[in-house]
Amino acid sequence: METIFSEGIKKTPSSFIRDILKVTEDSSIISFAGGLPHPVSFPVAELQESSNRVIQDFGSNVFQYASSQGLSHLRKYIANRYQTKFGFACEEDDILITTGSQQALDLIGKVLLNKGDKIGMEMPGYLGAIQSCSYFQPEFCEISLEEDGMNLEELKGCLQKDNVKFIYTVPNFQNPTGITYSEEKRIEICKLMSSYETFLIEDDPYGDLRFEGRGLPYIGAGKLPGSILLGSISKIITPGFRLGWICTKNKTLMNQLVIAKQASDLHSNIFSQYIIWDYLIHNDLEGHIEKIRLLYQKQCTAMLAAIKEFFPQNVTSTVPQGGMFLWVTLPKTQSAIELFQRAVIKKVAFVPGDPFYVNRTGVATMRLNYTNSDLETIREGIYRLSQLISKE
Amino acid sequence: METIFSEGIKKTPSSFIRDILKVTEDSSIISFAGGLPHPVSFPVAELQESSNRVIQDFGSNVFQYASSQGLSHLRKYIANRYQTKFGFACEEDDILITTGSQQALDLIGKVLLNKGDKIGMEMPGYLGAIQSCSYFQPEFCEISLEEDGMNLEELKGCLQKDNVKFIYTVPNFQNPTGITYSEEKRIEICKLMSSYETFLIEDDPYGDLRFEGRGLPYIGAGKLPGSILLGSISKIITPGFRLGWICTKNKTLMNQLVIAKQASDLHSNIFSQYIIWDYLIHNDLEGHIEKIRLLYQKQCTAMLAAIKEFFPQNVTSTVPQGGMFLWVTLPKTQSAIELFQRAVIKKVAFVPGDPFYVNRTGVATMRLNYTNSDLETIREGIYRLSQLISKE
Repeated sequence: METIFSEGIKKTPSSFIRDILKVTEDSSIISFAGGLPHPVSFPVAELQESSNRVIQDFGSNVFQYASSQGLSHLRKYIANRYQTKFGFACEEDDILITTGSQQALDLIGKVLLNKGDKIGMEMPGYLGAIQSCSYFQPEFCEISLEEDGMNLEELKGCLQKDNVKFIYTVPNFQNPTGITYSEEKRIEICKLMSSYETFLIEDDPYGDLRFEGRGLPYIGAGKLPGSILLGSISKIITPGFRLGWICTKNKTLMNQLVIAKQASDLHSNIFSQYIIWDYLIHNDLEGHIEKIRLLYQKQCTAMLAAIKEFFPQNVTSTVPQGGMFLWVTLPKTQSAIELFQRAVIKKVAFVPGDPFYVNRTGVATMRLNYTNSDLETIREGIYRLSQLISKE
Repeated sequence: METIFSEGIKKTPSSFIRDILKVTEDSSIISFAGGLPHPVSFPVAELQESSNRVIQDFGSNVFQYASSQGLSHLRKYIANRYQTKFGFACEEDDILITTGSQQALDLIGKVLLNKGDKIGMEMPGYLGAIQSCSYFQPEFCEISLEEDGMNLEELKGCLQKDNVKFIYTVPNFQNPTGITYSEEKRIEICKLMSSYETFLIEDDPYGDLRFEGRGLPYIGAGKLPGSILLGSISKIITPGFRLGWICTKNKTLMNQLVIAKQASDLHSNIFSQYIIWDYLIHNDLEGHIEKIRLLYQKQCTAMLAAIKEFFPQNVTSTVPQGGMFLWVTLPKTQSAIELFQRAVIKKVAFVPGDPFYVNRTGVATMRLNYTNSDLETIREGIYRLSQLISKE
């Protein structure tokens, strides 16, 4: 049986990270590859308590079909938290609960993208966003990421094109680079975008994981009519529940997103939505997050120290103020994919830079995750890698 | 801000059932509209026990990121059950766990459909499938549903066209009509389809809910290379977990579906997958299903009796052997939508036939759900409706 697959799926790359799972799941491998949160971030006992309590309190409601937009109580909590932390007027109906942030990207693509439409994307950019958008066959405007955020000239060039549907950013502790947009650049991007009818997606799964410096306001939320925020509990409570959300005050967009949500999976797991809401109202989320921050800071510091100690001088690294990743630049002649192949033999893994670009291969950059290894392992892994990197 | 939405979302109808939720959620309304399982089908205490046990047994694994194809244990259980019940060689890797059957439809659409491709669809057909497929802008080949299944001539006519990607069926207790494909027709459809390279989707959320007659083998599973089965726990354990699956032995298709799954939501809720697997190995599923069957049989019998007692002679109804719905045909001159509007005033709701067709309005048919009302309420609701139906 010869199957003719859709043009869209043919354009959708398989996830490099998921393809190498067999490698990284081998327990003898030191893996800096995945983006797994440390299990310390799962409040196991509290989630168990909440799951028992919601069954007690709400009975069969937690097992029945539910609203496509998501549990009202939970949406209200999320909206209030934005109001309190960032001072912008966010309401329950501005929130759509999604099956993880990944689904948020899929729904936005479904609602906005025709083949050939343009989207602005950080380069390097989050591979899950590149994968998800690729299905819709847009034209990617690659916008270079600098130390303080997107290159403004390139952003402007992108915005001036026709049919630019959205600009995609991860403003805090970006995936894959770990960089954070500066306050100045945020203001300039907002100013620039206010002249265009283009959505600005701020994907912010890591924002709470700041272990250095002070928190910054969003670029567009509360300011731009085309602001879309993506949030998630994956990095602060549990990724296994697949709960994220879209926050937008654009009502027309929200209506279309809800239709796309109905067609995609009717609604997200309602038992888990009840549990998370119950957890949030009965526990000290900020105290819990503080524990994660302190651990990730130690792990990040350990990795940076090992890099300084072992890597040759011609290798550079970003210095994250939070989040889960740092980004290493090798000497130009060195292919990270080729290094990856040799590294796996020495039982250490990472993600080569290639899948974080659209159609670029043989790049000399790589993403290292520090949140899922203990301090000794981090040092040992960086040491092993250092032995494989050419000193020229 | 004027937004230009995608062609696909513009073609996607909003769900009629979800649009009238505000009406049907009003507790003073007798609702035959939704497709809500009766809460008796949720084994609440057992699910609570399982959720505590999986946290105990697997700790942080139930909260971490997980495999895109789904929990291995659960896929194995599902494969074994197909083997045992239907005798076809189904293996763990033939199963992809999805976020409800609704997502199964979305993933299949993503992988197979280009704009203008053809799909064969039962008419009337499941509105969730029509909604989900509409996004991909296919050409629907409408195949009339008869008392014993699809019209074979129309199916043949459809298969002879170019680019027919799949035929969509609900062979057991079809949604919306409640009819079941006869054994003879199943054999004939299988024979016919074996000459074509077209997938056959058998969407079977209700198969276990047979309360009359004997179970029949699937049309294509274990026989056709293009067989795709969709299954779900929504109607036998809980819809709130959003867990369904795709079963296909076509490896190339499965590989593409897994990529689509990654791009759509990475994986389905893993905590819930663990719970369901644990529930299945520690409890008597067949005994639990028997309880649901007995109740639904009583409810169905009560609705049929009330229809016979109250509805005029010129109104006919299907007689389901299982499942959740029956299908009523009014005199040709009567619009079900118009009846719906009058019925809501009298505090009774149903789904008019219109959304179960592609581009047809003013039809004289309607779907009645009997699983979510008690026997007295069923009788009262049918009585109220009967007062509104013209006797001419």
